[in-house]
Amino acid sequence: MNKGMLIVVSGPSGCGKGTVLAEILKSDKIFYSVSATTRSPRPGETDGINYYFLTKEKFEKLIDEDGMLEYASYCGNYYGTPKKPVEDMLEQGKHVILEIEVQGAMKIMEKCPDAIFVFILPPSLKELQRRLNKRGTEAEDVIQKRLSEAAGEIKQAYKYNYAVINGELEKAVDDLKSIIRAEELKTINSQNNIDEVLENA
Amino acid sequence: MNKGMLIVVSGPSGCGKGTVLAEILKSDKIFYSVSATTRSPRPGETDGINYYFLTKEKFEKLIDEDGMLEYASYCGNYYGTPKKPVEDMLEQGKHVILEIEVQGAMKIMEKCPDAIFVFILPPSLKELQRRLNKRGTEAEDVIQKRLSEAAGEIKQAYKYNYAVINGELEKAVDDLKSIIRAEELKTINSQNNIDEVLENA
Repeated sequence: MNKGMLIVVSGPSGCGKGTVLAEILKSDKIFYSVSATTRSPRPGETDGINYYFLTKEKFEKLIDEDGMLEYASYCGNYYGTPKKPVEDMLEQGKHVILEIEVQGAMKIMEKCPDAIFVFILPPSLKELQRRLNKRGTEAEDVIQKRLSEAAGEIKQAYKYNYAVINGELEKAVDDLKSIIRAEELKTINSQNNIDEVLENA
Repeated sequence: MNKGMLIVVSGPSGCGKGTVLAEILKSDKIFYSVSATTRSPRPGETDGINYYFLTKEKFEKLIDEDGMLEYASYCGNYYGTPKKPVEDMLEQGKHVILEIEVQGAMKIMEKCPDAIFVFILPPSLKELQRRLNKRGTEAEDVIQKRLSEAAGEIKQAYKYNYAVINGELEKAVDDLKSIIRAEELKTINSQNNIDEVLENA
């Protein structure tokens, strides 16, 4: 059995990465990395599903023990990616999807240079604006702020291994599937398969 | 427009790479690299289709001018891959498939480290033996020689970027398509696409 792969996915708000990932996660070989946080669970949130809900002491102990792939502090609470559950799934040959913003992804790139980094883009800023307007939940100035943030993030896409443009959902899903399959077929990830061909004489 | 990609494909005799490539070449974006040779055309062979038929002088001039990606001498004739037609197609954004044995592929790896190197394997040596027997064209000792050659080649598969196991044709074709698509989606190959997203504001 070959080890699983860590797939780090970023993309600006409104690019549709949640919808793309929901399709990808239908595979029984691909799992979502659950984040840890020190904030309190909201009604309906389950520990280990929405987040690992940790005390501040436990979270800081994990930081000290190098037990976090990355973490950040936001509004007085910690948020981060615990290393152990990710490593356990990879050892079992499962792929792990980690959805995270650009800064967090860059931290993971330092710790896990072998992970696969995928940036999901809208087909154009104009289309992103249209999608954000369509949501109808945000004021015009908030949308302008999001668009300018998106442009800033997209300018960093070149730091990722792959860029998937989400124009049509089905094509974007196929593209991400192609990336995952191609990575599986890399000789550095499939030496076991090559050895099996030779053994089966 | 992004530049095309050079895709170098090797695999032992009987692994079915010809059949896999025939399916891939149905794409109007993927072309086959035509080799050059100094041997005489056989009946039915057309210059520029089966081979570029060159004089010894012309071939040696190309070697001197660094106009060959690789070449070798076999039974008193030269065989090789002229650089110019490959580069022209890549400039036009077309992908070029170059089918070649391991030694030739290694020479190309030195000159074109950015090319994509794919090794096609049979599912097992036992299955390869079955396929070679089925052809019924070769004596048992020839088949044994081919099997031992195949094992030697497969041991070098790790030098390639990707390994595709041709158990079922359709799956192998999909795998090669995934590799090509994933390579197109690499940020180093698609910076133009990312720039377009930003320009289209």
